[in-house]
Amino acid sequence: MKILLIGATGTLGTAVHRTLTGRGHEVLTVGRSGGELRHDISDPAQTAALYERAGRVDAVACAAGDVPYKRVAEAAPDDYLAAFRGKVLSQIDLVRQGIPRVAERGSFTLITGVLAREPIPTGSAASMANGALESFVRAAAIEIAPQRVNAVSPTVFTESLADYGDFFPGMPPVALDDVAQAYVRSVEGAQTGQVYVP
Amino acid sequence: MKILLIGATGTLGTAVHRTLTGRGHEVLTVGRSGGELRHDISDPAQTAALYERAGRVDAVACAAGDVPYKRVAEAAPDDYLAAFRGKVLSQIDLVRQGIPRVAERGSFTLITGVLAREPIPTGSAASMANGALESFVRAAAIEIAPQRVNAVSPTVFTESLADYGDFFPGMPPVALDDVAQAYVRSVEGAQTGQVYVP
Repeated sequence: MKILLIGATGTLGTAVHRTLTGRGHEVLTVGRSGGELRHDISDPAQTAALYERAGRVDAVACAAGDVPYKRVAEAAPDDYLAAFRGKVLSQIDLVRQGIPRVAERGSFTLITGVLAREPIPTGSAASMANGALESFVRAAAIEIAPQRVNAVSPTVFTESLADYGDFFPGMPPVALDDVAQAYVRSVEGAQTGQVYVP
Repeated sequence: MKILLIGATGTLGTAVHRTLTGRGHEVLTVGRSGGELRHDISDPAQTAALYERAGRVDAVACAAGDVPYKRVAEAAPDDYLAAFRGKVLSQIDLVRQGIPRVAERGSFTLITGVLAREPIPTGSAASMANGALESFVRAAAIEIAPQRVNAVSPTVFTESLADYGDFFPGMPPVALDDVAQAYVRSVEGAQTGQVYVP
């Protein structure tokens, strides 16, 4: 398949890229500052330009999303708005603008995360963003069929424990290769409206 | 208790008002166009003014939230932004600004809805908003204790079936009195971070 991979040069995106190319897919890499196509999907105009340049694709996989981490009492409305624009609206717009661009039975795979279900201090904007996307995926799935849309919702990566492990005490980490397999499941499988927890 | 009730003159708010006053609570009614205090909580400045006028309260209960209904393919980024501002950020801001205003063991009760779990066509912005809030509630709860925050997540009201029943085929409706009891459970109970499905 021809697959558009957004956030392709990040920690997760690199693993997804390796796994998808290893399975014989043609992967077009997209990033704000790396990859073959340079676009910031938090700007709808850049998403439109990205689809224009990419041409017809069989699948869109996203491994990019930015949210601020602050305590509720110290956050401002702009922090929640930044999380909304940086992770929620950006990915919703990938689906919305992608509908006429992606193959008839093509798929969208979005990135969410464990904070939708299990909170951590300072994580309320991330929780909000992930919960928003997981409900959106269920709703969009029933409208866009036979195109499909799923979310991948990992916990902290095993490879990131040195940096972020302290924020997830006692929570089992997940290896990047296993997260990448959830993308494979979404892209090559037949289900839609699912939230895959690798 | 002294309870601030936002959206007090709407279909749900009227039922919540009747139930809370029936249990002996002092309820301050708030609405955009009705109630004792006229404030639009989608504007953070008006939420600040509302708390300034209301003074110390024991609980904040919200029965107000606006989202547009459109198919994903026909929606624009502004539609999702409107849902975010009209239901998500408005209620997050009630909590955020309420922390220094509400009693030490006071509570916040937010309104979400069944579309977080069960989608309907044209409902993706509503699903997104409800999912966002249900995850936010879990995250905020662990930070604001001993203050509490819960969500009430009803399906279509029995009393609204004539207007909206066609959008929820085969889904069991819920009586407004039962939804109001979920607010009682949140306000008078001791749990936090819960999503009550009446």
